[in-house]
Amino acid sequence: MSSIDFESYIIDIPDYPEPGVIFKDIMPLLGDAQGFAAAIDDIADHFIGQGITKVVGSEARGFLIGTPVAYRLGVGFVPVRKPGKLPRDVYRQQYALEYGTDELQIHKDSLTPSDRVLIVDDLVATGGTCVATAQLVEQTGAEVAAFAFLLELAYLNPREIIGEEFPQEIYTLIKVD
Amino acid sequence: MSSIDFESYIIDIPDYPEPGVIFKDIMPLLGDAQGFAAAIDDIADHFIGQGITKVVGSEARGFLIGTPVAYRLGVGFVPVRKPGKLPRDVYRQQYALEYGTDELQIHKDSLTPSDRVLIVDDLVATGGTCVATAQLVEQTGAEVAAFAFLLELAYLNPREIIGEEFPQEIYTLIKVD
Repeated sequence: MSSIDFESYIIDIPDYPEPGVIFKDIMPLLGDAQGFAAAIDDIADHFIGQGITKVVGSEARGFLIGTPVAYRLGVGFVPVRKPGKLPRDVYRQQYALEYGTDELQIHKDSLTPSDRVLIVDDLVATGGTCVATAQLVEQTGAEVAAFAFLLELAYLNPREIIGEEFPQEIYTLIKVD
Repeated sequence: MSSIDFESYIIDIPDYPEPGVIFKDIMPLLGDAQGFAAAIDDIADHFIGQGITKVVGSEARGFLIGTPVAYRLGVGFVPVRKPGKLPRDVYRQQYALEYGTDELQIHKDSLTPSDRVLIVDDLVATGGTCVATAQLVEQTGAEVAAFAFLLELAYLNPREIIGEEFPQEIYTLIKVD
């Protein structure tokens, strides 16, 4: 763990994008040279030596944390994207939204059964995107090694929801109770 | 320059997303540990010592290259996003599409006049997104130091279009003639 107070970089935006929701803006952390480097180092250092072979992150904010963590770990990065963005053969995974469903996709040839995957995102809330991403990784035959997030909205119980299907470690830098 | 043949990692997808267009899929380069690290190192090494204080990248694929380059340079990363994604006060920049216009935004407080900015994206085609991003950087009062891209579709003459307004250096790893 770093001695940096990561939470001090996060800006709360009340009633965004809708009334009653407090949006957590992580951009000031990414924009600060020291804070950004410390956050990436903290996540990567935690997983060094665990045999991670790929980092997977979902668009768009998962790219912001996932690619530098992959770079720091010395492994490749594989994107999970919304429909219509990946041009080759994909696996698809539906997941529930508050109203209706959405879909995420991964290139079929982007992972192999010998891969051990760290799933990285900026934030975990209800865990829906995270579970769909893990299911996509498993569709490729690869192994989900662990999850890492900058920010965990603990009051939404994402660990319980993710843990029903994926008992792997969940590592977060900032917990919001 | 690296001795790696970056172009060998790029997959051409004919007639995607529409007939007559050859889509350049950079994901196999990002997914390869050696190729990904070499690409980020090549761009970052080129700009080390040039006083860069921030990297700016536009959503979503600009995040994939911009954040690891920022990490490697030891500077912060600032995103340029589509409308409705940045929760605080923004500058706005319209730019022309083939049909109609689109808009990009940047947080007003994300850069200051003392910043020297490297603009990074995965690909430059007609240069429209790139010019709009540079205009947003200038709206904040910061200085555009240079541009860096993984891939340049040289046959679309982006250097000419960008150069009309921004004479700064354009550095690319792969040129497609």
